[in-house]
Amino acid sequence: MSTEVTLDCRMDKVHEECGVFGFYDNDGFDVARLTYYGLYALQHRGQESAGIAVNDDGEFLCHKDLGLVPEVFSDLILNNLKGTMAVGHVRYSTKGGNMRENAQPLVNKYVKGTLALAHNGNLINGAKLRNELEKNGAIFHTTIDSEVIMYKLAQERIRSHSIEQAMLRAMDSLQGAYSIVLMSPRKLMGARDPYGFRPLCIGKMKNSYILSSETCALENLGAEFIREVEPGEVVVIDHNGIRSIKNEQAQKRAKICIFEHIYFARPDSEIQGASVYEMRKLMGRHLAKDFPVEADLVFGVPDSGLCAAIGYAEESGIPYGYGFVKNRYIGRTFIQPTQAQREQSVNIKLNVVKSAVRGKRVVMVDDSIVRGTTCANIIRELKEGGAKEVHLMISSPPFMWPCYFGTDIPSRDVLMAVQYSVEEMRQKIGADTLGFLSMEAIKEIAQNLNCDYCDACFSGKYAVPVPNEANKMEFE
Amino acid sequence: MSTEVTLDCRMDKVHEECGVFGFYDNDGFDVARLTYYGLYALQHRGQESAGIAVNDDGEFLCHKDLGLVPEVFSDLILNNLKGTMAVGHVRYSTKGGNMRENAQPLVNKYVKGTLALAHNGNLINGAKLRNELEKNGAIFHTTIDSEVIMYKLAQERIRSHSIEQAMLRAMDSLQGAYSIVLMSPRKLMGARDPYGFRPLCIGKMKNSYILSSETCALENLGAEFIREVEPGEVVVIDHNGIRSIKNEQAQKRAKICIFEHIYFARPDSEIQGASVYEMRKLMGRHLAKDFPVEADLVFGVPDSGLCAAIGYAEESGIPYGYGFVKNRYIGRTFIQPTQAQREQSVNIKLNVVKSAVRGKRVVMVDDSIVRGTTCANIIRELKEGGAKEVHLMISSPPFMWPCYFGTDIPSRDVLMAVQYSVEEMRQKIGADTLGFLSMEAIKEIAQNLNCDYCDACFSGKYAVPVPNEANKMEFE
Amino acid sequence: MSTEVTLDCRMDKVHEECGVFGFYDNDGFDVARLTYYGLYALQHRGQESAGIAVNDDGEFLCHKDLGLVPEVFSDLILNNLKGTMAVGHVRYSTKGGNMRENAQPLVNKYVKGTLALAHNGNLINGAKLRNELEKNGAIFHTTIDSEVIMYKLAQERIRSHSIEQAMLRAMDSLQGAYSIVLMSPRKLMGARDPYGFRPLCIGKMKNSYILSSETCALENLGAEFIREVEPGEVVVIDHNGIRSIKNEQAQKRAKICIFEHIYFARPDSEIQGASVYEMRKLMGRHLAKDFPVEADLVFGVPDSGLCAAIGYAEESGIPYGYGFVKNRYIGRTFIQPTQAQREQSVNIKLNVVKSAVRGKRVVMVDDSIVRGTTCANIIRELKEGGAKEVHLMISSPPFMWPCYFGTDIPSRDVLMAVQYSVEEMRQKIGADTLGFLSMEAIKEIAQNLNCDYCDACFSGKYAVPVPNEANKMEFE
Amino acid sequence: MSTEVTLDCRMDKVHEECGVFGFYDNDGFDVARLTYYGLYALQHRGQESAGIAVNDDGEFLCHKDLGLVPEVFSDLILNNLKGTMAVGHVRYSTKGGNMRENAQPLVNKYVKGTLALAHNGNLINGAKLRNELEKNGAIFHTTIDSEVIMYKLAQERIRSHSIEQAMLRAMDSLQGAYSIVLMSPRKLMGARDPYGFRPLCIGKMKNSYILSSETCALENLGAEFIREVEPGEVVVIDHNGIRSIKNEQAQKRAKICIFEHIYFARPDSEIQGASVYEMRKLMGRHLAKDFPVEADLVFGVPDSGLCAAIGYAEESGIPYGYGFVKNRYIGRTFIQPTQAQREQSVNIKLNVVKSAVRGKRVVMVDDSIVRGTTCANIIRELKEGGAKEVHLMISSPPFMWPCYFGTDIPSRDVLMAVQYSVEEMRQKIGADTLGFLSMEAIKEIAQNLNCDYCDACFSGKYAVPVPNEANKMEFE
Repeated sequence: MSTEVTLDCRMDKVHEECGVFGFYDNDGFDVARLTYYGLYALQHRGQESAGIAVNDDGEFLCHKDLGLVPEVFSDLILNNLKGTMAVGHVRYSTKGGNMRENAQPLVNKYVKGTLALAHNGNLINGAKLRNELEKNGAIFHTTIDSEVIMYKLAQERIRSHSIEQAMLRAMDSLQGAYSIVLMSPRKLMGARDPYGFRPLCIGKMKNSYILSSETCALENLGAEFIREVEPGEVVVIDHNGIRSIKNEQAQKRAKICIFEHIYFARPDSEIQGASVYEMRKLMGRHLAKDFPVEADLVFGVPDSGLCAAIGYAEESGIPYGYGFVKNRYIGRTFIQPTQAQREQSVNIKLNVVKSAVRGKRVVMVDDSIVRGTTCANIIRELKEGGAKEVHLMISSPPFMWPCYFGTDIPSRDVLMAVQYSVEEMRQKIGADTLGFLSMEAIKEIAQNLNCDYCDACFSGKYAVPVPNEANKMEFE
Repeated sequence: MSTEVTLDCRMDKVHEECGVFGFYDNDGFDVARLTYYGLYALQHRGQESAGIAVNDDGEFLCHKDLGLVPEVFSDLILNNLKGTMAVGHVRYSTKGGNMRENAQPLVNKYVKGTLALAHNGNLINGAKLRNELEKNGAIFHTTIDSEVIMYKLAQERIRSHSIEQAMLRAMDSLQGAYSIVLMSPRKLMGARDPYGFRPLCIGKMKNSYILSSETCALENLGAEFIREVEPGEVVVIDHNGIRSIKNEQAQKRAKICIFEHIYFARPDSEIQGASVYEMRKLMGRHLAKDFPVEADLVFGVPDSGLCAAIGYAEESGIPYGYGFVKNRYIGRTFIQPTQAQREQSVNIKLNVVKSAVRGKRVVMVDDSIVRGTTCANIIRELKEGGAKEVHLMISSPPFMWPCYFGTDIPSRDVLMAVQYSVEEMRQKIGADTLGFLSMEAIKEIAQNLNCDYCDACFSGKYAVPVPNEANKMEFE
Repeated sequence: MSTEVTLDCRMDKVHEECGVFGFYDNDGFDVARLTYYGLYALQHRGQESAGIAVNDDGEFLCHKDLGLVPEVFSDLILNNLKGTMAVGHVRYSTKGGNMRENAQPLVNKYVKGTLALAHNGNLINGAKLRNELEKNGAIFHTTIDSEVIMYKLAQERIRSHSIEQAMLRAMDSLQGAYSIVLMSPRKLMGARDPYGFRPLCIGKMKNSYILSSETCALENLGAEFIREVEPGEVVVIDHNGIRSIKNEQAQKRAKICIFEHIYFARPDSEIQGASVYEMRKLMGRHLAKDFPVEADLVFGVPDSGLCAAIGYAEESGIPYGYGFVKNRYIGRTFIQPTQAQREQSVNIKLNVVKSAVRGKRVVMVDDSIVRGTTCANIIRELKEGGAKEVHLMISSPPFMWPCYFGTDIPSRDVLMAVQYSVEEMRQKIGADTLGFLSMEAIKEIAQNLNCDYCDACFSGKYAVPVPNEANKMEFE
Repeated sequence: MSTEVTLDCRMDKVHEECGVFGFYDNDGFDVARLTYYGLYALQHRGQESAGIAVNDDGEFLCHKDLGLVPEVFSDLILNNLKGTMAVGHVRYSTKGGNMRENAQPLVNKYVKGTLALAHNGNLINGAKLRNELEKNGAIFHTTIDSEVIMYKLAQERIRSHSIEQAMLRAMDSLQGAYSIVLMSPRKLMGARDPYGFRPLCIGKMKNSYILSSETCALENLGAEFIREVEPGEVVVIDHNGIRSIKNEQAQKRAKICIFEHIYFARPDSEIQGASVYEMRKLMGRHLAKDFPVEADLVFGVPDSGLCAAIGYAEESGIPYGYGFVKNRYIGRTFIQPTQAQREQSVNIKLNVVKSAVRGKRVVMVDDSIVRGTTCANIIRELKEGGAKEVHLMISSPPFMWPCYFGTDIPSRDVLMAVQYSVEEMRQKIGADTLGFLSMEAIKEIAQNLNCDYCDACFSGKYAVPVPNEANKMEFE
């Protein structure tokens, strides 16, 4: 929910790969501007690049660049993006350097005209498909899976009657997670992989249709939530209205990534029937039940731990408060302190509210532990600030396995929970208590969902065959 | 504490005018970069321009421009700002247009070389002094009081032995609020008006000295808080260390602006002996005592009402939670929705967490009411989101009088509390309860301060003679 | 040779499409920076985008954008472009809008790694090839022929032993004009179509090799001119040195575009054995012989007519001088006068030197007439400035036919010479004499070349089959 | 006349300090845009900063920054500069660093409202006046003389009836060269020092008035030249039309800086009754008479020697041609070759046309020699390019004395002509002949002027007392 996530917690947070958005206008709306606000509401899903493609009676115009939504688009640019359909994208990327080419939506010419594609997720067999295509003479301009998907669409289109049929057929060869918004000269489409790992929902605003990764973007536009795109479904919106076709491999119930509810999604979104905010509060309540401590104050690490902290406070009866002030002004251009300055204690982002923690036994709630380094720093500062005890509650089970479905959970060898027992972790981090949400708690909380869920990063139980950990790198 | 304050609450929030910072190096620190982090910690005090002047053995270099601290300074620029002293400034301004000239610090040549000046506050007799100077042939490049102060310094310097004496003498003619950081070729100085309306404190980092509007900037740098600059005091830092002289009109106890504790300052700062965070919690507690209601949920309007809401929740025993999600990504370049889009319910900044408020009786805490329009909108949205009752608690008394000391409380004719009774306000805003903090509560809470306070905006009791309201405009 | 060409003569000048450059380092040179200077020397061949790709031991980095060479590259960007090979490109484009995608070099992944390609010229069968590729599932990111060439290379590479063999084979299907610089992980290559329409030469600097559209870039770098790449030749530079293979369809003698000597190339370049400057002077001399007039002053239209004007003055004995001052400061961002302002006589680029032309009979030399509008304006201004007679000499025959080989000579229906006789043109333009260089003169002058030439835009005699004029649009 | 002058001949060219422009509208013209074109025509007089101030019924708006006119102003900015009067300025500055503050016009508030001032020239007693002002309490924001003039105006205004009277009185204390355009709330004024060192002329466009450093700006706007502002004259334009008052010290005949005709002004301007182009041709003719040589080719160093070269060619009968091609694309951001690269012969700006000079005896004409280094390089390159002999003709006498009137001729100790005899210079430069224009020739040519002239940089005869050379630095 905040810019800083990618900027200075980079080493110790897991990131979502993308947010997607689409708009099909039947009311004379300014589609580029509404897509701008839609992407702005989805900014937490990706802060490294942003893009909008519009379709003006078959003519496509696209603007995209590195940066936050308000950095990439100016009034002038939005004024030039006229049309009756739009596709938008925000992206998080682990790839460094000047990769402007990798910004989405991708806009390509193919045998039937032009296509614009925005993609959230990750293909398990992306590298394999890319390889096969190259062996047949394909050239690639980017290093992203979206270009592989685009190629498959172009090839399937040759033997299909329609682009939506091509999308359905492409699903047979695309393995992994993908929630896609696709725009052809006459249609706006949404597609979700047969497992439904990543969210994608349909909204309506007067007579116009919206596709969005999360419902918060619908709420921000004052649009109505219709339903979620189902696993393996292709939703087609055109001048005939909305209709749907489905891939045969489609699972009955989505296996939504449970980390959407734990951390990725905005608290005001509802995903697969459950309020993210309420889910997080429940996680906090479970932690309070499983790890009761004597303490004077409960607070969350802003912003990822705030909602679960409220649940913990409610369940435990320990007063809720603030432990930190977080500086909100960081943007792309912020100059990080040097290592030398950090050693001089220059600490620009989170500041302990000393008057609040001094002499107190505190419960601090956060969403997860990756490498453990940030946690350790924060706890040290709390103790330097006068906290007598720090009880750390984590609103997820320990990360034990890599993710192949669109998040950047790193290889096992850097995951703290792979290397150490919980008690060892507690000691290394310097916490007086360290509690993780249990798999059972997840299971119980997940009953609020209208579908199944993927918890492979905790359990190692992947819904589909995945490559060996040793080979993980080649799939990135 | 957040960028957005100036951007979309512009019509319904009161603003601080500025933050000031100074650094005198005795340890080989990178003064420009540390001033950058200091200003970054003070960013909440002014988001419209930022500037740093450094002094390299008598040679002054200055960079300043419109924008946030990270927007104004790049790595390259900071690298060029070499020196052993620095003065920094962040500014909020009610003046529109391209006023790059008004950015601070001001750097001027005068009879004794160069001076750099950063100023927080407002002169009551600024226009009068400007007039007198012009009648004697003065020319002005800016429209800010700081240039008037600079002129007075230049004139007093002619008949003084030192720049600090000149500063002391200038105090005799400067009426109003000013906390100043001043840099001459060999000295860094801090000065505070004889009433001490605005904060200014002294810090130390190894053997180097810091001046800062608030202590949070010291904490961010890992510096030690020494003490506050006293009313009417001029603190001089040079190669002999730190020393102090005092104006004869100086009050014994500062009359700190109480709105610093209510809203302006960062919660993690301590001002005049009191933690801002604790003061705000106390305000919430008082509201809970004075306006007890039956309710299911307490929350604050982010970010201005959050701390007081915690106090209210604690005192009342009603659960604390979230009512809104606030989008944090807004920067200077964000494109606001048009009026037409707003009417289509495009609502990009605050979003109600419907699952949290649905069917609930809620207590919402905010810091103040100016025109009342934003409050009314927020309450309407809460009710549309399903809240059964909305009890609004304001952690300050009603604004009844203009401020002449450095905030932009508007003229009386637009202040809602001047035009309506509290009951009328409640009805217009659509709240089920409307409670304001009482003057008695302020008085009691203020016992935590080590000084007096100014509450003229609530009481109309000004510490110094002020012009008629009718004439207010000429003082702006 | 000047920025303005593309900016305000846009309607009445013919443009070259591109300049290409390559560098293979064996001496530890800064390849990006030398390519920057090389492109800067070729800037006259394209002012709309610029790009450099470097190869650092197989890793490719590319930076390109819309703008002039000095606008696109900063010191910081050049510092990041480290490597031992580089490919550069400057581009002129008739396509409007934000076409950053079309900037070159193209950098693509394919079955054998990465390729970077810079292209000058135009394919006759570009649209046809694109179509065929799309029918087999290809997707296109750009609208330029270079991407078609890249695809053909990728496909031919599958059945070839080397990238240079693939290039040679691709020549069999690529029809039209192309001078290419190509970079693979280990090789830098230059290729020229079997007719050699566009120039491409080889240079050497110590032990390092250079490929460049023109020799002026070699001179600017202090490099030695080795020879021209021959028609249908692929030159390969790698750690074994330089070697060459040749397509079987290669013509013995290049059919260089004669308009390179008339207008496109820089006067200080030598192309196909002839100095551009001397060729232009000869054209002027021929005009003086064929169209002798009584006059007091000869001058050229800056900068395109200056060299030929010197030849005319020499041959005729009429004094050479200046007729205009040309404002040199125009850049990308220059704001053109509005139509209303132009009618108020606001005239910002060329200004008549009235003292020079007042009362004089003048001979004005220019390189060509497209639509005739600019000529007419200039002559009117000369006469308003006091010129008694204006004798217009054009150092080329009349444009009668479109070009399919890389220049933007427009369709026949806008060419003045297609619509009117020379006498009618003279009257419409308002000249007292109008002389065009004859085809015979071209033939005689071209004896200085070491090859044949293409004059199809004058003669309609195309070296290869071209589409009907009616179909021209599809080839653009 | 070209951007490059300030960029790479920096060490060996003399620079004009500024160009000024003013517009008083009576016809509904877009004053900002016309001032933009006016400044664009004067760009050769200063390339380091540009600014425009407009006056909208007494409200002043100003935009100025470092850069060329097209770099400083965008369409958006010009659209915001609405008004009925404008003052514009382009500036050359020898002062390095980020001196945005020194850009003009200066806009200041003073006792009678607002003033905008643009200044071309240099005060001899600027430092002295600045000192006196500071002793009386003045503060300075800039280091330019214009601020001193502004102060004097503000002080004189107190005891004058009008701003024009104040200007006239200020002249009594301002010593040196100044051509000023001044804008008060109701008047546009032009003023020229009592000696008239720098040009300033009056134009008319329909019923609107223009003030401009040179006539070329009038021609570019299609305006009519009225007359020159006279020495010591203040011209006042307001709703009553145009009127004039004169300082008592005013000389009858201006002492125009003769270097305006030699180098500074644009060839298409007329200054003090003489065409700059014709004057330069005459200089070339005199050189041909005084230094006849046997040669095959005459050319000028672009652009400063081109006009005189034409005169030399005409008088001598030796053919005129090109010796160099000059790359025109250099802008502010061009990255100069490093010293190492220069030693590798990277030579990006002037390139010898080898085919033109090979085996030839050439006459090269340039405007002046300052340090002699550039000349020597150019001659070396010509000889390396095959020139058999190089006869260098300089269209001015040798620089022997500093200038105190607005050009940056350096101190005597770096002037080549101060250190060496002409024969020694010839040898050092490597020329076969070195001819300088004689003082007698200047005198004869100057008969075309309608006034006297200042040739102090050649003769040492200053029209007014100047400081000792030893003290020159303090006057800069």
